[in-house]
Amino acid sequence: MKKIINDPKDVVEEMVSGLVSAYPKYVKQLPETLVVARNDDYDQVALVSGGGSGHEPSHAGFVGDGMLSAAVCGQVFTSPTPDQIYAAIKATDKGKGTLLIVKNYSGDVMNFDMAKDMADMDDIQVETVLVDDDIAVEDSTYTQGRRGVAGTVLVHKILGGFAREGKSVTELAEYGKELVQDIKTVGIALSGATVPEVGKPGFTLADDEMEFGVGIHGEPGYRREKIKPSKEIAEEIIGKLKAEFNWQKGDKFGLLVNGMGGTPLMELFIYFNDAKKLLEADGIELAFTKVGDYMTSLEMAGASITMIKLDDERARLLNEPVHTIAW
Amino acid sequence: MKKIINDPKDVVEEMVSGLVSAYPKYVKQLPETLVVARNDDYDQVALVSGGGSGHEPSHAGFVGDGMLSAAVCGQVFTSPTPDQIYAAIKATDKGKGTLLIVKNYSGDVMNFDMAKDMADMDDIQVETVLVDDDIAVEDSTYTQGRRGVAGTVLVHKILGGFAREGKSVTELAEYGKELVQDIKTVGIALSGATVPEVGKPGFTLADDEMEFGVGIHGEPGYRREKIKPSKEIAEEIIGKLKAEFNWQKGDKFGLLVNGMGGTPLMELFIYFNDAKKLLEADGIELAFTKVGDYMTSLEMAGASITMIKLDDERARLLNEPVHTIAW
Repeated sequence: MKKIINDPKDVVEEMVSGLVSAYPKYVKQLPETLVVARNDDYDQVALVSGGGSGHEPSHAGFVGDGMLSAAVCGQVFTSPTPDQIYAAIKATDKGKGTLLIVKNYSGDVMNFDMAKDMADMDDIQVETVLVDDDIAVEDSTYTQGRRGVAGTVLVHKILGGFAREGKSVTELAEYGKELVQDIKTVGIALSGATVPEVGKPGFTLADDEMEFGVGIHGEPGYRREKIKPSKEIAEEIIGKLKAEFNWQKGDKFGLLVNGMGGTPLMELFIYFNDAKKLLEADGIELAFTKVGDYMTSLEMAGASITMIKLDDERARLLNEPVHTIAW
Repeated sequence: MKKIINDPKDVVEEMVSGLVSAYPKYVKQLPETLVVARNDDYDQVALVSGGGSGHEPSHAGFVGDGMLSAAVCGQVFTSPTPDQIYAAIKATDKGKGTLLIVKNYSGDVMNFDMAKDMADMDDIQVETVLVDDDIAVEDSTYTQGRRGVAGTVLVHKILGGFAREGKSVTELAEYGKELVQDIKTVGIALSGATVPEVGKPGFTLADDEMEFGVGIHGEPGYRREKIKPSKEIAEEIIGKLKAEFNWQKGDKFGLLVNGMGGTPLMELFIYFNDAKKLLEADGIELAFTKVGDYMTSLEMAGASITMIKLDDERARLLNEPVHTIAW
């Protein structure tokens, strides 16, 4: 294992320390926690997300005006504990309730739910939106149902925009439940990732091999084969998304091509270029596009394609400025 | 070689196509060129930069209000041709002159100079700022004198800010020549990068080995040894920077920790955390901090530390908002 780290046990603590000290105008660390919270004043429903670390810039990079109020950083690929999530809820509560945005993994679901119970006793109204955008497989290693992956960042953005505009926590939760049904993602991997405390890759691929449908913790996908040209990969992935959305000519969508951590931007732009051409050929109107590392898996080489069904309001919210480290 | 690409010969063309179609609100492609230019109106000195591709988001990701007017994308690790640079100068000229920001590599220096000569015949006043911030080695593979690396992005930002405020091309060139002397960088690598048309890594490192002082095209550094903890790497690199700057307690600096393309944000934040602590121990005031991928080397794993000596004006310019894809 070659990484720019110190003791593998300390990676999350040192990362959070580095992140908040690099970007004090956006974020602060809640004392005695691994919670990254907004460092400015606001008066709205609080949005709290988080999960295991190793997916940076998710979620701390999306804390700030127009997106999250706080992100709870678990250990690498490990759900944050309920007391940490509860601390985030307490610290960001403005008396208007809290919306939890949770990726669908069993550990996260359980721990965010326990934190919600703790906050209920403080009479904080807490609602939850569960994100399960990964259509590659159904139940997976850490998941009942579909996994939550890069589409989560779009949920942060749209619900963050609505929260800033004054929507209630009940409205946000109701809207969010519909929203997540309109967001779908499929990933591919060219290499595995190494959790620092484990010291070896979670899976390995041969020098000429790729895997379709891999999760962001190295969970198995649906097929391994020889590496193919970007165009052919895009054809397969866009085909899977089309089968789910069943889109028609003229439909409006957003397209996010997300890097997994070890893939250079050059490849992401090429992959985007191929995906976009296929969508144009189908007559899809793209009202939002984004390319870069948003929901990563440590140093894994690979990328995911997320599509989101848009109307004018969603497109507006996705395109409007926010004040965060990484959007 | 495993990459998400199609024909290796087409990577730059397809990347530029993807980039401009993903971000039309920032940039457009000049027809029949690999030039990425601002897609909005402006009335100021034009700033043109560029170089070989493979360093994304440099330089096209920094085209936009407050930074570059255009970026010329050469083939991978290959200088753009004079006619392409000339096309960028012509297309962005607002009658106020053009500032070329050039990384110090022999091919770039020669080709940007030839383009300047072509523009001189059109009576466009063209001045050049040469960036040579890499203090790791003196003459290198493609360089007489020091190499230009991640510090170039800070030059884009500061001179871009001044240009937006109305400074003349002569003023910008004079200021730029002083500015580059106050910016210094040292990189490290944990792995090599593979140029698509070459198909194998430019250099290789053993599974437990790193190299100090590597350039952004895989040019040799100054020492190879076993991988060390982040703290010890930071001590060595900050020590080298200190020996160059000869800073005193209370001096004001900016700190950029830049990823080389294959290194996850988690490691960059840990490395930043260690560097920052060393600078704090020296009594340095950090008035600007930034962490992420800004000047990469394809999928190379590694990072560079750039420091810039600041006064209030430079700090203001570095911290003010711009409208680009990647700043």
